[in-house]
Amino acid sequence: MTKSTTSTSTARKKRARKTTAEAAGTDQLVVDDIRDAVSQFKRERIIAAAVDCFYVHGYSNTTLESVADQLNVTKPFIYAHFKSKNMLLAEICSRGIKVSLAALNRIVTAPGSAMERMTIFSRDFMMAVLENQKPVAIYFREIKNLDPQDRDAINELRRDFDHKLIGLLDEGVAAGEFVLNDTRLAAHAIGGIASWSYVWFRPDGPAPAQQVAEEMGRLMMAMLRPDPGAPWDSGRV
Amino acid sequence: MTKSTTSTSTARKKRARKTTAEAAGTDQLVVDDIRDAVSQFKRERIIAAAVDCFYVHGYSNTTLESVADQLNVTKPFIYAHFKSKNMLLAEICSRGIKVSLAALNRIVTAPGSAMERMTIFSRDFMMAVLENQKPVAIYFREIKNLDPQDRDAINELRRDFDHKLIGLLDEGVAAGEFVLNDTRLAAHAIGGIASWSYVWFRPDGPAPAQQVAEEMGRLMMAMLRPDPGAPWDSGRV
Repeated sequence: MTKSTTSTSTARKKRARKTTAEAAGTDQLVVDDIRDAVSQFKRERIIAAAVDCFYVHGYSNTTLESVADQLNVTKPFIYAHFKSKNMLLAEICSRGIKVSLAALNRIVTAPGSAMERMTIFSRDFMMAVLENQKPVAIYFREIKNLDPQDRDAINELRRDFDHKLIGLLDEGVAAGEFVLNDTRLAAHAIGGIASWSYVWFRPDGPAPAQQVAEEMGRLMMAMLRPDPGAPWDSGRV
Repeated sequence: MTKSTTSTSTARKKRARKTTAEAAGTDQLVVDDIRDAVSQFKRERIIAAAVDCFYVHGYSNTTLESVADQLNVTKPFIYAHFKSKNMLLAEICSRGIKVSLAALNRIVTAPGSAMERMTIFSRDFMMAVLENQKPVAIYFREIKNLDPQDRDAINELRRDFDHKLIGLLDEGVAAGEFVLNDTRLAAHAIGGIASWSYVWFRPDGPAPAQQVAEEMGRLMMAMLRPDPGAPWDSGRV
């Protein structure tokens, strides 16, 4: 994958600079950190501009020129960070699942019961999706425009997410904290509640993101532990 | 909108045929019914072929020729039923929300408590989405390719759906059957669980559609009436 090539080349440059820094003393290290930070900052600005363009006009109707125009830079500025429009799309499309997986990874390795960890995760996951509404929307609209290799890599992240979430739900069922017939379907229901928010959530809507995340987290948790006296639940196994 | 023009012209032809039928006797009426049924059958075959093409290759990469090829007919056959590729897209994109709204309309006017009606609706809604997986996927991928008028018409159906679902949830809260802080967010959570299924559900997967609809319906109902003793629910208002 081209992406890993870039990472390797960045790591190589970084190692080279580190060696120079060791010779020159700690001052050089600070400069290196700033250099990396500036490069990262530029990358994020390019991504943000591309997110806006792809979100409003769609991927096919967006040129790298229009992304450059929005940043008041030239195309070579973008090429220094992304080799193609398609690499930029792959980076954007992986955002939503990467932040969601990061939230899940934090919780999977944390101490506490499955119930305690799911309570935190349900809100964090919802918040991660709300904060990445445009990348999530772009991913679901532009799946067909992704390079097959990039699509496979993102699907691999999604499988990892599902696998770990089902594992956490299984843990809670085994401990008697959750009551579920099918933890795989419950994981899809949780994923649906969060991911779907890109369709209806408006940052300037009636409820702020934090409040929406709080309430959606509670709805997710309610699914995992139904009222034992509910009349519809006679079929519980 | 071109669609309503077509409907008017179909209605006019139908009226003309009815008059002929009145003169000729009831035999002609049967023939008219068959003519309508055949026209409807052809329309559905065209839609099914277009769904397959749009789903696999995307709207932009599909020509009306390729849809005609799949049916072993010529382009004029399609033009007799749909004036353009875009009209065909609008018809497909409205499918998922139309069947969901039909399921909701049946339940809104039915007798029974909010709890009883929601129990039926949650499964029917899930089933309607599972059975229209490809049109639902096409709608969310091709939103940008819809004619603005068609997009507005579909959004109007979605607003009607949300409004009626929130109304039913409010009814249940007022009757003490549901315990919810925010019925609007609960409606979005239910919508998310169902709509999201186009991403993960496979008709040849581990669980058949009927079983998935049953279980997702129970998860939706669990959200509406949480376990009063759940430790995460101390913030209930």
